[in-house]
Amino acid sequence: MDRNRTLVRTFRHTTMAKALNTAEEYAKGIREGNRVLLGQAITLVESARPEHQQLANQLIGLLLSEGAVPSQTLRIGITGAPGVGKSTFIEALGNYLTSLGKRVAVLAIDPSSQISKGSILGDKTRMEQLAASDLAFIRPSPAGNSLGGVARKTRETILLVEAAGYEIVLIETVGVGQSETAVHSMTDLFLLLLLPGAGDELQGIKRGIVEMADILCVNKAEGDRVQLAKQASVYYSNATHLLPPAQSGWAPQVLRCSAQEGTGIKELWETMEKFRAHVQDNNFFAENRRQQAAWWFQESIRDSLLSAFFQHPEVRQQLQYLEPLVLQGKISPFAAAEQVLGAFPVRLNKED
Amino acid sequence: MDRNRTLVRTFRHTTMAKALNTAEEYAKGIREGNRVLLGQAITLVESARPEHQQLANQLIGLLLSEGAVPSQTLRIGITGAPGVGKSTFIEALGNYLTSLGKRVAVLAIDPSSQISKGSILGDKTRMEQLAASDLAFIRPSPAGNSLGGVARKTRETILLVEAAGYEIVLIETVGVGQSETAVHSMTDLFLLLLLPGAGDELQGIKRGIVEMADILCVNKAEGDRVQLAKQASVYYSNATHLLPPAQSGWAPQVLRCSAQEGTGIKELWETMEKFRAHVQDNNFFAENRRQQAAWWFQESIRDSLLSAFFQHPEVRQQLQYLEPLVLQGKISPFAAAEQVLGAFPVRLNKED
Repeated sequence: MDRNRTLVRTFRHTTMAKALNTAEEYAKGIREGNRVLLGQAITLVESARPEHQQLANQLIGLLLSEGAVPSQTLRIGITGAPGVGKSTFIEALGNYLTSLGKRVAVLAIDPSSQISKGSILGDKTRMEQLAASDLAFIRPSPAGNSLGGVARKTRETILLVEAAGYEIVLIETVGVGQSETAVHSMTDLFLLLLLPGAGDELQGIKRGIVEMADILCVNKAEGDRVQLAKQASVYYSNATHLLPPAQSGWAPQVLRCSAQEGTGIKELWETMEKFRAHVQDNNFFAENRRQQAAWWFQESIRDSLLSAFFQHPEVRQQLQYLEPLVLQGKISPFAAAEQVLGAFPVRLNKED
Repeated sequence: MDRNRTLVRTFRHTTMAKALNTAEEYAKGIREGNRVLLGQAITLVESARPEHQQLANQLIGLLLSEGAVPSQTLRIGITGAPGVGKSTFIEALGNYLTSLGKRVAVLAIDPSSQISKGSILGDKTRMEQLAASDLAFIRPSPAGNSLGGVARKTRETILLVEAAGYEIVLIETVGVGQSETAVHSMTDLFLLLLLPGAGDELQGIKRGIVEMADILCVNKAEGDRVQLAKQASVYYSNATHLLPPAQSGWAPQVLRCSAQEGTGIKELWETMEKFRAHVQDNNFFAENRRQQAAWWFQESIRDSLLSAFFQHPEVRQQLQYLEPLVLQGKISPFAAAEQVLGAFPVRLNKED
């Protein structure tokens, strides 16, 4: 509890740090497992200030070039509709993993923090036991103006916590937006939490998310819901058989657990280990990480380029004029696009 | 048969047309249902020559501003794994629709035509009966260097055939690439054809396509496959219940037919009519078309901008140098992206 408070205080204070260390000092401290320097470095990654950004880039470049970021970590994305019990689940899984002596980092991507500037894992205080462990490091979702920005920060934070020796990284997100795609593209394993019952909570989940899941787990399999949970897992088992096969060659598994009672967590972790063995054997693990790096590279270029374009005053003016005409079907989207592109001060070569 | 040959000959000849008509002449001819002028206009849309493009843009602009493109047409996307019998199915559905007195256009998007310069519906000669009907207009997939280019041409062709009075547009594609997303984003109704059996053909279908389908139809429900087809439709019915609800509020329907024997086609069309009534009642039909126009507008801007960027010599040089480092994890994708962006001759404002 005291440690937990200290942790929270550290987060606050790092944002106010006056004298910054050098990239070399941060790198050394992180590799030695210094939590304060780790927290400060994450704050640099999350900061919008150019000098912080520059230092963060330097630090990450240093860690990567030194090979300080180990490749044998496991990055687990966790999602599920609101009410499925994600926080309790993450604490239960995290506690189990630390009980095995593993070092666990918990991160989050919460697109709603764009608006509210709040964040999931703001209820971190509820993860009291996990937060109190020397083996665990919990960091709330960064805030940001765009999902792309928020996701980028989290992806770089993964590198930092891995360099600090956290071998399992749990990344939480909510099942309602595009954040799943972002989390999916930075994790090795994607876990979808479900409720006992007939899949009603899928109402709140975006299409395509079920197909991303490597493991589905029906939580709250406890008390008088045990039977409902069994029905749900049969139901989802049948459903996942219908999905086209994943690139990983892994057939999605459906499990049951009760995060509250701590049951099923061991079996879940064993299945995760099986998944890891499977994708390491067939080399998908490494290939997937390469693909993800390539994707973020491209995505990051696209993001910056498009955002620069759409912020250009002439472009904005053209958009404002043309978009209603496109929506009303008064002009072809392609003809309108050409007109907008003409407003950008770069000669663009025509395709085809 | 003779008519069919004439049609094929027309396609060939239009590409060699010497004297072009004016946009006004094309518009008038198309509105009057002149098939030769319609074919020539589509050739203009498909042409890479700037003067053809310009004339095509003018023509489409004219048709849109005159309100010549009716909004009450129905655009149906049709996909399915190779071997599912798409051509036979389209002929059966087309024949049924023309027997009701409806005017039907058949278009296609075939990404493989990028490589082979061939096209699906190249087997159009197999649709002999439909091709011979005055009420039907069949056009093979355009060729092109990119899916985006091919899709754009087809989307503009839809406007032309609708202006020519074809009230139902069937757009065929193969279930193996990204072309489904393109077809999905230009149609009102998406139909997935399936084979009797336990879904093995889904092996050949890209993830996410099942979720796009408004109607699933098990084809080849004939002879000793009737029972297997029944099993398959139960199987898919269960599966689609598990999908998160579509934006349209329509629950996907699973039907059976035999295109060869012509059974189930009437029921399928009735279900399509039900779908249309549903989405017209809840206003999704119009809203979806607006969203699609907005999507193509954005997508077209993105496409051109990104393709201009990635063709820039300095950018290509940087990419060639940095991409291997990104894949090897030696540099952060974000830092690499910044370096590439620096090579582009436009000052880009930083995001966040």
